[in-house]
Amino acid sequence: MRSSSSKARAIAVVAGIASITLAGVACSRRGGGPGSVTGTSTLDLMKARGLTEADVSAALKTYTPSGKKDEYLTFAGGGHGGFMMIIGVPSMRILRHIAVFSPESWQGYGYGDQSDKVLAEGDRHNHKLTWGDSHHPALSESKGDYDGEYLFINDKANPRIAVVDLKHMVTTQIVTSGLIESEHGAAFVTPNTEYVIESTQYPAPLGGRYAPIEKYDTDYRGAVIFWKFDRAKGRIDPERSFAIELPPYMQDLSDAGKLDSDGWAFINSFNTERAYGGDKEGKPPLESGASKNDMDYLHVINWRQAEQVAQAPGKTKTIAGMRTIPLDTAVNEGLLHFVPEPKSPHGCDVTPDGRDIVVAGKLDTHATVYSFANIKKLIDDKKFEAKDPYGVPILPFAESIRGQTELGLGPLHTQFDDKGNAYTSMFLESAVAKWSVKDLKLIEKVPVHYNIGHLVSAEGDTVNPDGKYLIAMNKWSIDRFDNVGPLLPQNFQLVDLAAPKMRVLYDMPIGLGEPHYAQMIKADKIHPEQVYKPAGIDPYTGQRDPFAVEGGQERIERRPDGVHVFMTEVRSHLTPDIVRVKQGETVHFHITNVEQALDATHGFALDSYNVNLSLEPGKHSNVTLVADQPGVFPMYCTEFCSALHLEMAGYFLVEPK
Amino acid sequence: MRSSSSKARAIAVVAGIASITLAGVACSRRGGGPGSVTGTSTLDLMKARGLTEADVSAALKTYTPSGKKDEYLTFAGGGHGGFMMIIGVPSMRILRHIAVFSPESWQGYGYGDQSDKVLAEGDRHNHKLTWGDSHHPALSESKGDYDGEYLFINDKANPRIAVVDLKHMVTTQIVTSGLIESEHGAAFVTPNTEYVIESTQYPAPLGGRYAPIEKYDTDYRGAVIFWKFDRAKGRIDPERSFAIELPPYMQDLSDAGKLDSDGWAFINSFNTERAYGGDKEGKPPLESGASKNDMDYLHVINWRQAEQVAQAPGKTKTIAGMRTIPLDTAVNEGLLHFVPEPKSPHGCDVTPDGRDIVVAGKLDTHATVYSFANIKKLIDDKKFEAKDPYGVPILPFAESIRGQTELGLGPLHTQFDDKGNAYTSMFLESAVAKWSVKDLKLIEKVPVHYNIGHLVSAEGDTVNPDGKYLIAMNKWSIDRFDNVGPLLPQNFQLVDLAAPKMRVLYDMPIGLGEPHYAQMIKADKIHPEQVYKPAGIDPYTGQRDPFAVEGGQERIERRPDGVHVFMTEVRSHLTPDIVRVKQGETVHFHITNVEQALDATHGFALDSYNVNLSLEPGKHSNVTLVADQPGVFPMYCTEFCSALHLEMAGYFLVEPK
Repeated sequence: MRSSSSKARAIAVVAGIASITLAGVACSRRGGGPGSVTGTSTLDLMKARGLTEADVSAALKTYTPSGKKDEYLTFAGGGHGGFMMIIGVPSMRILRHIAVFSPESWQGYGYGDQSDKVLAEGDRHNHKLTWGDSHHPALSESKGDYDGEYLFINDKANPRIAVVDLKHMVTTQIVTSGLIESEHGAAFVTPNTEYVIESTQYPAPLGGRYAPIEKYDTDYRGAVIFWKFDRAKGRIDPERSFAIELPPYMQDLSDAGKLDSDGWAFINSFNTERAYGGDKEGKPPLESGASKNDMDYLHVINWRQAEQVAQAPGKTKTIAGMRTIPLDTAVNEGLLHFVPEPKSPHGCDVTPDGRDIVVAGKLDTHATVYSFANIKKLIDDKKFEAKDPYGVPILPFAESIRGQTELGLGPLHTQFDDKGNAYTSMFLESAVAKWSVKDLKLIEKVPVHYNIGHLVSAEGDTVNPDGKYLIAMNKWSIDRFDNVGPLLPQNFQLVDLAAPKMRVLYDMPIGLGEPHYAQMIKADKIHPEQVYKPAGIDPYTGQRDPFAVEGGQERIERRPDGVHVFMTEVRSHLTPDIVRVKQGETVHFHITNVEQALDATHGFALDSYNVNLSLEPGKHSNVTLVADQPGVFPMYCTEFCSALHLEMAGYFLVEPK
Repeated sequence: MRSSSSKARAIAVVAGIASITLAGVACSRRGGGPGSVTGTSTLDLMKARGLTEADVSAALKTYTPSGKKDEYLTFAGGGHGGFMMIIGVPSMRILRHIAVFSPESWQGYGYGDQSDKVLAEGDRHNHKLTWGDSHHPALSESKGDYDGEYLFINDKANPRIAVVDLKHMVTTQIVTSGLIESEHGAAFVTPNTEYVIESTQYPAPLGGRYAPIEKYDTDYRGAVIFWKFDRAKGRIDPERSFAIELPPYMQDLSDAGKLDSDGWAFINSFNTERAYGGDKEGKPPLESGASKNDMDYLHVINWRQAEQVAQAPGKTKTIAGMRTIPLDTAVNEGLLHFVPEPKSPHGCDVTPDGRDIVVAGKLDTHATVYSFANIKKLIDDKKFEAKDPYGVPILPFAESIRGQTELGLGPLHTQFDDKGNAYTSMFLESAVAKWSVKDLKLIEKVPVHYNIGHLVSAEGDTVNPDGKYLIAMNKWSIDRFDNVGPLLPQNFQLVDLAAPKMRVLYDMPIGLGEPHYAQMIKADKIHPEQVYKPAGIDPYTGQRDPFAVEGGQERIERRPDGVHVFMTEVRSHLTPDIVRVKQGETVHFHITNVEQALDATHGFALDSYNVNLSLEPGKHSNVTLVADQPGVFPMYCTEFCSALHLEMAGYFLVEPK
């Protein structure tokens, strides 16, 4: 990866810069000894730290001095940590963790009434769920470009979609449908965020029914849900959402058409073999059962037409509350077509111009480039080569594609730059392959460490990719970092796309969660509010909370539904700071941080009652509890908010019955 | 902070290195165009990215190339996130998140039987607790030096201490005592980790009793607990632990004596005024009520003697299961003395040689340096100037100290280097002050951004500090990073201690949790195992689990206590991959990752049943659930473990009753 492999050359290069000194010597020449900034020459530093000249260049391309801002923000899913992260590029620093499917006490998420309610929206099968497998973030789009307003992310384990409002960087909604039991190909948005697309991974009887696994072919199904996003309200509207029933293949990643292909969606699938395991019952495990066929099916869906069908009387069945277009209706209405795709496909990525769909097969060596124009014409001409067992018409492979590019072993996902190039992650080779979309020619590869899954380039799945940077999201790090035990970090490697050749600039360990996909947006497109204005805002509704408290109005009221504590927080006290209740009483804390100063966040912990809130400036939170345990319980601000933060405390006194 | 403020000088410096090109040009001279690594000169890079010469030096001092290791590991608490982080130094990258008091699904912590049990150890007042306020990590020590074996961390909110076994980087034990309701001065270890020290913050009636707040002086108390650590077992032994009752002041940070002062402990306090708030009841809030006196009391405790007293018959009372030395016994036995300390003290740090104790007062401008020799002599001579209202003898201030160093506004905590210097965080000034312990003279200050709380230098609180690096743990970042909304990251700033003058090298946003303290250990002292050997280890006991499964022994057994599923995981299948049960049955999953390959971690998710495990190579986990909901539930490996990871799945089939 580095070009300084020749010892002779390395010496020559080092010699070439040996005479250079950085500020240290420069300063001491000017200002004398104590004025020295570093006291060390570049050469000394390179020697001391074992840096090559390529390392120096990489350092200067990524190092972001104190107070300087990053150019891009990468929103990465947290995998089975159930959260999101915002990572600055090129510095590769984690700027924020955003709780989504899992409670997170630092943010007070899941420790107060309002956020409890958001999380409870995602409960399934009467089970409280406290984690998710957050895979694919999707920034809201306008005309196919990120608009910086909202972010959606899915939960693979418990099929759900969360809405993150980027105005306050808070998860404001979680939706789930009892229609399906698992998903993966989500969240993907249509070019104006009309819909958020979610498709099943592991088929099951629709609507949460039980059916024995032997009835897999007849009773198990996949589905794709088009969740309607109401931008004015900032919420998904389940009433206006709809689904299409799909055969019991394992639907995989999807992408929305754009520009030429706007109005269409494309979903990969594997396991068209309809294997379902049974490795202790005399059958092959899924991995081999699902890998027999040479071709699986790219699902081509006309969502704009489906939207019409879903609204037509009698065309849908409502299953678990979801308007669902039955498979035969989808076929009869021409909403769904299949195109063969080579072996166990994974990535499915529409090119920036919307003209092509790139599919890469895990067990194939190519990127296969489908032409939307070809597909459209074949559909219009009803030129089908066969039907699948469920009657879905199959387009001829050879006439659907524009061509294939031989890339190597284990190609997965593809991103794009501003110069007509595509970048495909190569899992088995541990490399990123750069190739020309126009010429379908491989240009170069750069090794990455190790086992790259997704990759993300700057605005790389919009209609206007930026190039510049790419992050290889490597699943294994093995020997890349200090040994921190059996659970190793992943490794995000920043790749320079601006230089003539791709080069790894930075290794970023990911020691929390296991991000799958990410999106990288220009930082100047994101404009969150920095305080809640006016004070008293509930971030989960964006409105002033009916229980918001103003300074001077603090009080404790006894009402029929319990004790209401109207509290404010300001540096450095809680008001009121003594709360007296009787054992068994229901207590409603209503707490407003009345500050409007940037960064003046307060916390609110109630010892041994499992309460912790994060009250950023102007934020209001409610928390309800039953004072079931008598005793003396300190309450305090959990943020180091001022020099006297330890004194920002009080007592919750529960008198025994 | 940077010395290049003069425009003329900046130009001169840039001109001085304008002729230097990095690999790019150097390469193209040799190998021609396409061989160029960067294509950009240093000057171009500096211009393009707005880097000063000081920035270039800082970049080279911190940038850690792909595959190169960090020199130090910093273990930082996660504040009210309830976790720990391991941060590499000098690269300032998060290498691992370790779940402690809060469940964390990526690690499977709190989502399986064994880790549920660890978390349940920390429940209090019949409440399940799912978060903590993790403040002060303490690495285990041998002869006053970090030995890299264990780490302890406290929960301020729900008084608890957790033990992290660094062999597997896993939280293996949580202890709590019903004696107290809050703590802060923890965890601090004695020089051979004989004890882990935990002292109260907010007084309450001991043992969880209720008493009205008006009985504060008579019924509320503080305490210090000496938790006995059994190194051979790797566990705290509550039976061999003991406590000392303390007056109802607010005990604060503490430190253990070492070398000369070994056998002693020192605990700060504030609120010797015994204020308890009441701001809506005509009293001042705690912040002013607790700040009236000019002096509070440094608690000087002879723990070695207390250990003897605690074992003597009739000298202790057992309160909430904890052997407690009553306050009058502590006084009569000469275990406890007070020394006045200036206004609202916070930091309490013993010098590397154990001869001095440095205390800094939030509302005082000095570091006050107490001489242990002076204190010891005053105690031996029984030279007391007064007694506090609880009869505790008070030593004379002037004769206890060696001197004071005027530092500035808001001094808090102090760390040390290898050259006899101390570094004190200055909260109100947002600076680090360097001063000479011997001469008690201020040497220099470096500004930090902003509101520094703790700080940590390399092995900076051991008997052998390293110097080299210091991290300023700044609580506010304000304008330092891209705007990510109202909840801003903290800012860890890496400060160079090796150069002639202190200088900030790197800004690291902390966008998850709010770390308070950290400890920085040489990376080569940490030797975690990278796989669990042999396969089948339960990390929470360190032993092979009785339900461990070997390849070929997978099976499903029906026993009187339910269905036992003995499962293995290996790339890329679960065995068995179909589990059939009847609604209402209790199901025990016993899952072993039988792989021994580094980094070959598998997950195990059971959809909609709130189960997720992390099974690093060789690890075994058990999870028990009641199949109360009928239906078809996919189960799968949540790690991207192989090219066919999506096929590593199966079905949990719950037939309705």
